[in-house]
Amino acid sequence: MNPKPFFTIEEYRSRLAKTRETMYREGIETLLVTDPANINYLSGYDGWSFYVHQGLIILMDREEPIWFGRMQDSNGAKLTTYLSDDSIRGYQDHYVQSNLRHPMDFVADLLMEFGSEKKRLGVETDNYYFTGQCFKSLYENLPEATIMDANLLVNWVRLIKSPQEIAYMQKAARIVEKVMQTAIDVIDIGVREGEAAGEVVKAQLVGTSEYTGDYTSIMPIMPSGLRTSTAHLSWVDRRYEKGDLVLLELAGNVHRYHAPLSRTLIIGPPPAQLTEVAKGVIDGLNKVLDFIKPGVTGEEVEETWRKAISGTKVVKESRMGYAFGNNYPPDWGEHTVSLRPGDKNVLVPGVTIHVMPGVWLDEFGFECSEPIVVTETGCECFVNFPRQLIVK
Amino acid sequence: MNPKPFFTIEEYRSRLAKTRETMYREGIETLLVTDPANINYLSGYDGWSFYVHQGLIILMDREEPIWFGRMQDSNGAKLTTYLSDDSIRGYQDHYVQSNLRHPMDFVADLLMEFGSEKKRLGVETDNYYFTGQCFKSLYENLPEATIMDANLLVNWVRLIKSPQEIAYMQKAARIVEKVMQTAIDVIDIGVREGEAAGEVVKAQLVGTSEYTGDYTSIMPIMPSGLRTSTAHLSWVDRRYEKGDLVLLELAGNVHRYHAPLSRTLIIGPPPAQLTEVAKGVIDGLNKVLDFIKPGVTGEEVEETWRKAISGTKVVKESRMGYAFGNNYPPDWGEHTVSLRPGDKNVLVPGVTIHVMPGVWLDEFGFECSEPIVVTETGCECFVNFPRQLIVK
Repeated sequence: MNPKPFFTIEEYRSRLAKTRETMYREGIETLLVTDPANINYLSGYDGWSFYVHQGLIILMDREEPIWFGRMQDSNGAKLTTYLSDDSIRGYQDHYVQSNLRHPMDFVADLLMEFGSEKKRLGVETDNYYFTGQCFKSLYENLPEATIMDANLLVNWVRLIKSPQEIAYMQKAARIVEKVMQTAIDVIDIGVREGEAAGEVVKAQLVGTSEYTGDYTSIMPIMPSGLRTSTAHLSWVDRRYEKGDLVLLELAGNVHRYHAPLSRTLIIGPPPAQLTEVAKGVIDGLNKVLDFIKPGVTGEEVEETWRKAISGTKVVKESRMGYAFGNNYPPDWGEHTVSLRPGDKNVLVPGVTIHVMPGVWLDEFGFECSEPIVVTETGCECFVNFPRQLIVK
Repeated sequence: MNPKPFFTIEEYRSRLAKTRETMYREGIETLLVTDPANINYLSGYDGWSFYVHQGLIILMDREEPIWFGRMQDSNGAKLTTYLSDDSIRGYQDHYVQSNLRHPMDFVADLLMEFGSEKKRLGVETDNYYFTGQCFKSLYENLPEATIMDANLLVNWVRLIKSPQEIAYMQKAARIVEKVMQTAIDVIDIGVREGEAAGEVVKAQLVGTSEYTGDYTSIMPIMPSGLRTSTAHLSWVDRRYEKGDLVLLELAGNVHRYHAPLSRTLIIGPPPAQLTEVAKGVIDGLNKVLDFIKPGVTGEEVEETWRKAISGTKVVKESRMGYAFGNNYPPDWGEHTVSLRPGDKNVLVPGVTIHVMPGVWLDEFGFECSEPIVVTETGCECFVNFPRQLIVK
């Protein structure tokens, strides 16, 4: 009944050890983790409770992290983490969305209880779930602590995936193959966009005949027509028409691990300009996939792409890929490696990247992406799906 | 093709006027809006782009808000808002998830351009999308500005719903009735939980024969068995068994307006203790619905509930309802009125509340809720669905 954490206790301990190594190197004595993916990564905790303040306290001299969250979610922590009961601390409901007291006041009390009130305290300064008010509460309640920027500290620990993580991403990849095929099968003249979106998400959650899918961190991005000229629109209340172009940025998810995938579909014969852009993007993508191997940097990958598209009609202003893996809404990106100028991060085996050369021109867009893992000798695509403009 | 904003320009202007009234009353000269629901409410902007920093700047002497966001989302702003092109300001991709520069540095430049660098600047301090780093960037870049707490300022403007907002919520209510019935129909012995979740979300997006549904801000909360002892778990990879209890906290959404609804289902005959708790909760809920009318406060509603359940086996520590409406992940609550001790907010016509008496005991939970709107004389339920423990 109780879905135990999805990794061995040894794997969690190794993650914590790596986290503490980084803390030590950066002079952080106590770490406050508020990113839901980082909480999950270090403790197994899973629940749609991140809309209230919650997190982990990582101490140097206590093996288990301390989970804090709303009291009504404490049973959720008992059910989904490996933590012992005395590491699970729920706060009363009068802290929830109140202007009288803030959950971080409770956390400050906990930090005092665990002797961290004068320590160098790392916080995830730019995480969605660490608000300005969190900052303020900690500064006010712990005047003797030294508050330090530990943004993305755990995200960087997550960069290189373990064999078990890769295995979950492979399972997610089997799901996204089915999801993409579902989208292609269902989208047609006269079909409502909401109907297509419904079938897509159903395919995400139903999963395969062997296992169930989890929710993805981004809902299906599937704009049509002129709405393909921008990156993040969903479906609207209309029926597909002949000639419609549809962007499909979809994913599968298993135990919070994603496999994202983008393709572009047109209902009817493609205009010459689209065919040309599609060819340019796919050629560039292929060159990039050939190029990626251990030792190259994010910016070198992007440079390969930029050279490949120079002279074509493809215009691309934004980064052409990013690290991905375990995540919660609103994003499946890990906010670490980005394939763009200036990114000096060196790729090593086990790094997972969504190579995502989406282009959004004034009148239309085109996307064709591949999620990959860097291997000892190059890279491997998670997904097996025709790399082409899909003409229906 | 272009789905214009879903409200009249007059309605947006009236919302802005109310926002400026509050700003004036609180001494705020320029307001930075980062909550995606508040952005949508004041401009119509809609897109899954809130995973990067974006927002609106509201000035006192400029009718249109200024939208800022990632450049590749600017076309999205052109397509979904009523704003003129010179009110749409995209930042370059090198600001995205970079440790070299922060999007709020760009916003600080914009604030200077619009003469706000020495103004009293309100920010949404505890919003998910206003991180500690946002705070820090503004303090550092605008040393002469006075940064003020404008948390929930626009949320409170949103409290009383307009007839058009109520109409969208009624449409969402038609969807959630279908969604809940779908869940009840599909959940059965031997069915995989992921299959049920897939059908539920499909029903949310397909909508009715007349209109499409949008994604809800919370994915289906539908734990089974022991997992019902806590508030925010989803489905897992198992098949339902005889005797399973399943909590269903689901919603419909139309144009970002929600209708949430909770029910509890058991596969097989209910144990006596569950029947008793269900009766206690539903009796209490009915008394609360009879009690709600203009003039009563949040805490008086909760007191009515507490009296109703005293002497029964129902134990409830957490708040028993909250304002809801327009929202984006991760929450459909508005973070304003809460039905709990200490809440002195007076209910008035047009306020919409999810009356949500969920109880989570050590071994099992029970939920039965109603989304309502306060009327001139009492309250009206959005949803028409049997208020009972569902036995299958």
